[in-house]
Amino acid sequence: MAPNAHPFDPLTPDEITRAADIVRQHFPDRAPNFRVITLREPAKRDMVAFLEQSRQGAPASRRPARCAMVQTIIADGKAKNLFEIVVDLDKGIVASQQFLEGKHSYIDAEYMKQVEAACMADERVQREIKQLQLPDGATACVEPWAYATDGMNDMTERTTMCWFYMRLVAHPDSNYYAYPLDLCAEVSENLQVTKIYRLPSSEHERIHNQQRPFDRRKLERLPTSTEYHPDLQTSHRTTTKPYHVTQPDGPSFQTDGNFLTWEKWSMHVGFNYREGLTLHDIRYDGRSLFYRLSLAEMFVPYGDPRSPYTRKAAFDLGNDGAGINANNLRLGCDCLGHIKYFDGWHNTSTGDPLKLPNAICCHEQDDGILWKHTNFRTQNAVVTRSRILVLQTIITVSNYEYIFAFQFGQDASIQYEIRATGILSTCPIDIGEQVPYGTVVAPGVLAPFHQHLFCLRIDPSIDGHSNSLAVEESHAMPLDDPDIHNPFGVGYTTKSTVVEQEQGLDLDFTTNRTFKIINENVINPVTGTPVGFKIYPYYSQTILAHQSSFHAKRSEFAAHAVWVTRYSDDEMFPAGRYTMQSLGGDGIASAIARRQHDTATDTSVRNTDIVIWHSFGSTHNPRIEDWPVMPSEKMTVGLKPVNFFTCNPALDVAVSTQERNQSVLVCDGGQNNKNRTTP
Amino acid sequence: MAPNAHPFDPLTPDEITRAADIVRQHFPDRAPNFRVITLREPAKRDMVAFLEQSRQGAPASRRPARCAMVQTIIADGKAKNLFEIVVDLDKGIVASQQFLEGKHSYIDAEYMKQVEAACMADERVQREIKQLQLPDGATACVEPWAYATDGMNDMTERTTMCWFYMRLVAHPDSNYYAYPLDLCAEVSENLQVTKIYRLPSSEHERIHNQQRPFDRRKLERLPTSTEYHPDLQTSHRTTTKPYHVTQPDGPSFQTDGNFLTWEKWSMHVGFNYREGLTLHDIRYDGRSLFYRLSLAEMFVPYGDPRSPYTRKAAFDLGNDGAGINANNLRLGCDCLGHIKYFDGWHNTSTGDPLKLPNAICCHEQDDGILWKHTNFRTQNAVVTRSRILVLQTIITVSNYEYIFAFQFGQDASIQYEIRATGILSTCPIDIGEQVPYGTVVAPGVLAPFHQHLFCLRIDPSIDGHSNSLAVEESHAMPLDDPDIHNPFGVGYTTKSTVVEQEQGLDLDFTTNRTFKIINENVINPVTGTPVGFKIYPYYSQTILAHQSSFHAKRSEFAAHAVWVTRYSDDEMFPAGRYTMQSLGGDGIASAIARRQHDTATDTSVRNTDIVIWHSFGSTHNPRIEDWPVMPSEKMTVGLKPVNFFTCNPALDVAVSTQERNQSVLVCDGGQNNKNRTTP
Repeated sequence: MAPNAHPFDPLTPDEITRAADIVRQHFPDRAPNFRVITLREPAKRDMVAFLEQSRQGAPASRRPARCAMVQTIIADGKAKNLFEIVVDLDKGIVASQQFLEGKHSYIDAEYMKQVEAACMADERVQREIKQLQLPDGATACVEPWAYATDGMNDMTERTTMCWFYMRLVAHPDSNYYAYPLDLCAEVSENLQVTKIYRLPSSEHERIHNQQRPFDRRKLERLPTSTEYHPDLQTSHRTTTKPYHVTQPDGPSFQTDGNFLTWEKWSMHVGFNYREGLTLHDIRYDGRSLFYRLSLAEMFVPYGDPRSPYTRKAAFDLGNDGAGINANNLRLGCDCLGHIKYFDGWHNTSTGDPLKLPNAICCHEQDDGILWKHTNFRTQNAVVTRSRILVLQTIITVSNYEYIFAFQFGQDASIQYEIRATGILSTCPIDIGEQVPYGTVVAPGVLAPFHQHLFCLRIDPSIDGHSNSLAVEESHAMPLDDPDIHNPFGVGYTTKSTVVEQEQGLDLDFTTNRTFKIINENVINPVTGTPVGFKIYPYYSQTILAHQSSFHAKRSEFAAHAVWVTRYSDDEMFPAGRYTMQSLGGDGIASAIARRQHDTATDTSVRNTDIVIWHSFGSTHNPRIEDWPVMPSEKMTVGLKPVNFFTCNPALDVAVSTQERNQSVLVCDGGQNNKNRTTP
Repeated sequence: MAPNAHPFDPLTPDEITRAADIVRQHFPDRAPNFRVITLREPAKRDMVAFLEQSRQGAPASRRPARCAMVQTIIADGKAKNLFEIVVDLDKGIVASQQFLEGKHSYIDAEYMKQVEAACMADERVQREIKQLQLPDGATACVEPWAYATDGMNDMTERTTMCWFYMRLVAHPDSNYYAYPLDLCAEVSENLQVTKIYRLPSSEHERIHNQQRPFDRRKLERLPTSTEYHPDLQTSHRTTTKPYHVTQPDGPSFQTDGNFLTWEKWSMHVGFNYREGLTLHDIRYDGRSLFYRLSLAEMFVPYGDPRSPYTRKAAFDLGNDGAGINANNLRLGCDCLGHIKYFDGWHNTSTGDPLKLPNAICCHEQDDGILWKHTNFRTQNAVVTRSRILVLQTIITVSNYEYIFAFQFGQDASIQYEIRATGILSTCPIDIGEQVPYGTVVAPGVLAPFHQHLFCLRIDPSIDGHSNSLAVEESHAMPLDDPDIHNPFGVGYTTKSTVVEQEQGLDLDFTTNRTFKIINENVINPVTGTPVGFKIYPYYSQTILAHQSSFHAKRSEFAAHAVWVTRYSDDEMFPAGRYTMQSLGGDGIASAIARRQHDTATDTSVRNTDIVIWHSFGSTHNPRIEDWPVMPSEKMTVGLKPVNFFTCNPALDVAVSTQERNQSVLVCDGGQNNKNRTTP
């Protein structure tokens, strides 16, 4: 137990150990394989009461029970049974237990290494590699991928796809994605290679068993690098001069454990193996805004129609885990200025606590001009600079990287920024061939089209927990309605509709369609309208796979840009709780349909505790400029107050002055005039 | 003459003086009122030849003629005739002269002051002000606005709308927009007050002549400030600690006059009274990308249907001028780090050079992570930081500010960012009233809905001047076509169409519609496709005013998001050259229609010299949080290479290290551990 832990705090190492002990006692002599030991967040009803009491100085005894959610595999003969167990750490007991029949746990990195080894140890695989006649010194390596359901298998067993690449240079960080081999293997749960075949290497080829050697023409490269590691690069830019951020009085934020305050904001920083960074009880100037914010899922389906590429479709949260795959962020590399790091804690398979160091960083950035006005009569300019607080986590999922950052503004705005970077997933293509669903990024290297489909879960508490979603559009006033005064044809008004029932909704910039989370019980005293926050969505294409495909059935959230549901403690994941080799029907659309089918269930989302899910992403048809490592592609979602305050909440930010900011004047040519303070 | 001036350089002060002398000699004894003396940019045909010769070290004698464009008013009895004159500065002659019958020059700030004085001096106006019974110490003031055509006048004469406000506090920077008065006057060309009336103060009221006193209840404010100036604010935030950017070796850019180089980029920085900042001959690593980039126009129509608010519709470039209204940027206020300023030059009405100091600033910013990859096998992370070069100009147009910035990336990307800030334009509303086309931001203060509609002119030269526009969409492959292999329903491909004829096009994120500027003559050696740059548009609503309205007819560019036209030296402004009290029919749509009507004109835009115009903006339905000064609202447009290079052009950027970046570790609570270099 951690008697001082806040209910939102992730489990401490001691709590992880204790939860494992309790589960081990529950399954005596069964050596549980612990997949997850994480905080089971308190029921919202209890937590809201606790937060309210805390704000009024209530006694600690009212704290919700401290519980762990444990996912463990219990071997039963040959069977490996997956259980999800709730451990009450206060009482030291197993509070509940569920056998997850037919479900798979998320990807096990240790198991994947075994798959890789088993695959490479297979004699038939070795024979195939030999047939490839790789260049001297080159070696083959395997990249195992979770199997994406395509309907060809019965899915009861875990299957792993093994893609083959060639490591041309012996350097451990050489980019083997530059040399995809036309070989593929499938490995079963019990580490047997069940299938080996050659990959299609042109638009009209299918998988086959012709043994063709590696085409040496693929090594005749243009004068460009295929490597990203500085050791292996031939060209190093030296023109970029140093740029430092100095904060002589330190950062403007304070932390007390996982409680963070900065510029009128307060929040709890959370972390779990799956979502990674989570944020809780977010307030501005003491007023409640969001109960919880997190990236809840993401899905990366590939658009290559040729088997077995149809099995490339990754749930990078549900299958891989944004927490487990969080980078160990390094000072001076991932951020500038004064950086505070938060460690994450996970568990080993034996139930010991496992530190994920520097999984989250917290720092400030200058964000240009916050507001400015120059009085044209006096020429007096008043300008303030925008400081933002950034909470960032970066994940690596095999070849690819995502940079996730919540950015808080002094004007009570929140921006969620995703940057996609890393290395494209590649496959082989014959020299001279093209396909209409991929880009040839190097001779013999195809980067297939794919989508990145994210789902941001927004659990609002705008001045309380009874909220509604209003959809507002801007429309021209009619010209020919005698009851409407619009003599010059220039008038326009907004039409607002409050969403009554759970549903998915689409974006429409042509009508300036705006999604506002409002509290209909709190009316702004000046504007006379409900207080609210509006969503600045990221405009992007929904999923391209047909609705009848497994890709679409497994990622229901990707069919619409905005979903609104009633809050439920158990509904955190819009593609379902278990995404590994899932079969569909577990997502947000199915949940809504089930509830609407059950006439006893209240599916109203008006003036109640609701959750908003924003699905967005990119249709990523690679450019050659994304190769061999991709410049960050930014996607942003915003949340801003709309008639929530009674004026600009950043009105009181200090005016920007040279005395405070100490900029330096550059004279012609690029020399500095350090002592001049005015231009 | 400025023998060393580059043909893209703005006119020097000496050239301005010389151009004025030549025009004065041309109109002896007529005391020209000089509105504009600016560079007439060389014909592109000549300029392209010059640039090519310069790159090959050609003699200076091949420089295109240095010419000035002069706009001047010549009094002829009572008539004030507007002329546009081209002066050949090399030859010292008037090369051409055009009498602009029925056209108006852009807004004359000196004349506007006369309007204001004449209005306030008018006895009837003074009587009306007296009737308002303003509080003791309060004074009325006038904000004159250019008249936006609504079809009520014949438009041959310049008319000015005078809006009245109350200055409650004697401070010169007090925010009088917080006290709009329900009074309006119209002033004629010859400074006569032609109309005085009271404004509508509710949804169903119209202009009238009832003399009502100022409602003192409008002074009973909530505990929020209506002031933005720090002298007048009651609350000052003190929690934001200093944040400095230091560049110990200076900036990474070099300038030679207006020629700028930075990180493989080169360009000429231009400036004129109307567009403000312009950029010319933009290259990356020596390869031609854009011949010219500029914001070409913007329009701000208001959505209040009630007369006289239908006359609020501002062409902030065509009527006001982004160059003339450029702020004098101040060191340490508008930017951090090492700043280089460019002055602008304009002219006085008597033809003398007028300096617009610090109209453009140039500096670098850190922009987070450029690219990153962590090898999951070795845990080795390679990360680079993105440095961007920012060229910024800020304009004040009466109440409102726009921050315009071109941002160049090391990865050959360009981002054009607009931030809207400043003070909302307000009008009176009765206490307790609401209208469906505005927000009550303070008691008695209505901020009407309006749109900001920008047009970015992109004159491409992607590896040469023969370019095309390709429209590419991503579509699911059909499920039921026996000739198409898509057995699992997950395949998708792109469909690309090259635009053949001049036209306006719309955005569609639902199909991932992408606009690529390509050079069909240059094929990428790896991808096998034409080299290109793609536009990352800003998704926003087109103009809401009906197509039959003067607002729409005057701002034709606002009807579509992307236009493509054949290049013409004379086609720089998508709402026409003369926007003051324009009547429509002068814009980009009319120009295209005229050319298409003339069968002798080639209107093909394929593989020729083309211009792309991106119209975008915001439907700005004010929030109370935008009051009394608005937090910046960002809009961005991107340009990125797409299969232009043969790999990531930023691959050679130096790896990010603590040694280089010198970040500081923050321990719990916010204290720093300055000497630790690793967390």
